[in-house]
Amino acid sequence: MKTNILENKSVRQIDIVKVKGNNSFPYTDDISVEEPLEIRISYGKDQRETKNISVTMRTPGNDAELAAGFLFTEGIISGYNQIKNIDHPSAECSINRENVIEVEMADDFVPQLKNADRNFYTTSSCGVCGKGSIESIKTVSTFQNIEQEQQAITLQKIYQLSENLQSFQNNFSATGGIHASGIFDFNGNLLALREDVGRHNALDKLIGHTLFTGQLPLKDHILVLSGRASFELIQKAAMAGISIVAAIGAPSSLAVDLAKEFNMTLLGFLRDNRFNIYNQSSFHKIIEK
Amino acid sequence: MKTNILENKSVRQIDIVKVKGNNSFPYTDDISVEEPLEIRISYGKDQRETKNISVTMRTPGNDAELAAGFLFTEGIISGYNQIKNIDHPSAECSINRENVIEVEMADDFVPQLKNADRNFYTTSSCGVCGKGSIESIKTVSTFQNIEQEQQAITLQKIYQLSENLQSFQNNFSATGGIHASGIFDFNGNLLALREDVGRHNALDKLIGHTLFTGQLPLKDHILVLSGRASFELIQKAAMAGISIVAAIGAPSSLAVDLAKEFNMTLLGFLRDNRFNIYNQSSFHKIIEK
Repeated sequence: MKTNILENKSVRQIDIVKVKGNNSFPYTDDISVEEPLEIRISYGKDQRETKNISVTMRTPGNDAELAAGFLFTEGIISGYNQIKNIDHPSAECSINRENVIEVEMADDFVPQLKNADRNFYTTSSCGVCGKGSIESIKTVSTFQNIEQEQQAITLQKIYQLSENLQSFQNNFSATGGIHASGIFDFNGNLLALREDVGRHNALDKLIGHTLFTGQLPLKDHILVLSGRASFELIQKAAMAGISIVAAIGAPSSLAVDLAKEFNMTLLGFLRDNRFNIYNQSSFHKIIEK
Repeated sequence: MKTNILENKSVRQIDIVKVKGNNSFPYTDDISVEEPLEIRISYGKDQRETKNISVTMRTPGNDAELAAGFLFTEGIISGYNQIKNIDHPSAECSINRENVIEVEMADDFVPQLKNADRNFYTTSSCGVCGKGSIESIKTVSTFQNIEQEQQAITLQKIYQLSENLQSFQNNFSATGGIHASGIFDFNGNLLALREDVGRHNALDKLIGHTLFTGQLPLKDHILVLSGRASFELIQKAAMAGISIVAAIGAPSSLAVDLAKEFNMTLLGFLRDNRFNIYNQSSFHKIIEK
């Protein structure tokens, strides 16, 4: 097992199972940490005006740079001299303080908040720690406690998923710049595929299709993602009642946490007759043949 | 030149220059279309209550699925029977109507809008066509009309950029799941690199760093992106006064449009001693040696 001497909040080690061909073995893997960051600003006389500007899912570290860069690139500030101080809040709920950053504006500087109306994430006061985000999904998911029988899936079927997704992906080969989400049955048949420059949009289109065709909940289906598995994608999968997600790319830490909380099987790096098991649901049994 | 018999709004053909080794030739390439979609809902007696729920940058096509899937996965609706109709608006500004989708709720159904406060994009009434988005950036960019002398960059320096980015990228090799943005000088030296699970966050951190260290505007620098170049990343680069962006992955249509509008050099697919020139700024001359 590898150990980190230096604390590195951007990487977390977790125990996974690596599968290659017909073999599998336990492994300690590094995954990228994903946590929400809420950016708040305060301004005006005695910093009395406060506003939650954005919540972004980010890798912890360089949070002051992230907040300042965001405010600058979105046109809310136009220079460093407009900032008096940037820090995580001191008092407040101590669990969450690392996921909140406060930017105090310089005296007499009025931030250009009309620019902030364009396209930002807004937020309620909760949900700025990973745990809060997961809890909030539990509340709204219709299919959270759905019952299902244990299903067996063969390695061969799993290996075929990535090949099938790619062979059906219309746009990728042409442009190299588009994400796909595909839904398969447990026999490895592709039922529907959607593509988009935004990975969350490809999945929303796919789930919208299953909503229109009366297929929800998708408990007897496998969701295959052409890229990485972020929290947002696992959240959407959970909402649709999907219990197994296979990603061609890497999952984030919060994606793994959410999969565990929802008893969802999460596979990553599915390519070239290999994959990693980040979580295995009690609903699924992966068998050789 | 390839032609599309069938209209495919998700792919656009553009004229680019392909560079391979020391050779270059004109080429007609397919790129993924990226355009904003504003999702609106109406509900209540005679659909009198209306709300703009989200603006997302998406690939056109399957917009009704996207809207329904989004409302469902975010917990605003819980079934298809809660929707009466989904369509692009009929009247209104005809240029933009394909980038707006209206979801009429079934009579007596009240959407769960408290769920919508969690983490959505909000929007002003403008900016829902690509052109509007580009115009709004022009308004707020401090460095839009910055003067600079023409600079020559050698092919060898460009080819080194992707190698240098990867050799300095700390986390990627370990986790395979993180994006990087790096800033280089015109001699190909890496000045700073930031990583994040969110590509926009990696770039915000990098620009925040240059704001703190007084390096803005970044007109004599090259921004290198580890993945694809979306509209959002080119927008942030433009805000920081960056005039040359090199992406390891593909650009989107709106990224190319924005690069052209801002006289910015945009290179894509920079790997293995090859790249594509999607736009070449009058500020830059790419030379063999």
